[in-house]
Amino acid sequence: MTTTNSDLPHPDEAEITLDAVLFALSDPARLEIVAQLAEGPLEMARCHLGDPEVPKSTKSHLMKVLREAGVIRNVAQGRGRLLSLRRDELDRRFPGLIGAVLAAQAGPGTG
Amino acid sequence: MTTTNSDLPHPDEAEITLDAVLFALSDPARLEIVAQLAEGPLEMARCHLGDPEVPKSTKSHLMKVLREAGVIRNVAQGRGRLLSLRRDELDRRFPGLIGAVLAAQAGPGTG
Repeated sequence: MTTTNSDLPHPDEAEITLDAVLFALSDPARLEIVAQLAEGPLEMARCHLGDPEVPKSTKSHLMKVLREAGVIRNVAQGRGRLLSLRRDELDRRFPGLIGAVLAAQAGPGTG
Repeated sequence: MTTTNSDLPHPDEAEITLDAVLFALSDPARLEIVAQLAEGPLEMARCHLGDPEVPKSTKSHLMKVLREAGVIRNVAQGRGRLLSLRRDELDRRFPGLIGAVLAAQAGPGTG
């Protein structure tokens, strides 16, 4: 666990576990966030969910699950927060996994 | 949902969802079962978990989650039950996903 460059704790690459990553990805709303971040880092305020009714507290919890699993980074940037997918680390740790999940998420088996 | 060739319900291929599959795979014991079945179908009585203390009821529940997600088939065979991984269907539905998860499970990021 390291807090370098961030006020929130993030697991180190070697601490990321397959079961936590799969669990984090097993929710459609969390997967939607991951798909957005696969395009590039995003300010949290610009990260929108398909369902606009999702309360801010729920959105915060989704981010927390993804961060604690090691799927995303959530670091302070100015007055906001910057979210990014830990793609390189996940690809090293679980080759092909995130790519297959993102391809599946874009496909017909979701929703 | 179809019950053809089985007394237990199984989702049809088109009904299998990514989030249910990822959730089913997000548990080390369930993933252990999937890894065993990746080698070929197995009688339920011959499917063993690394932790011998796992009660039979827990094992049944693990099988149920995997079956209801569409990850495995569980059909009556003689006086026992035969378990099999729905690999071909999963590969068609989510190309590369199961392969990446199994490779990750065999790697350093588990446990």
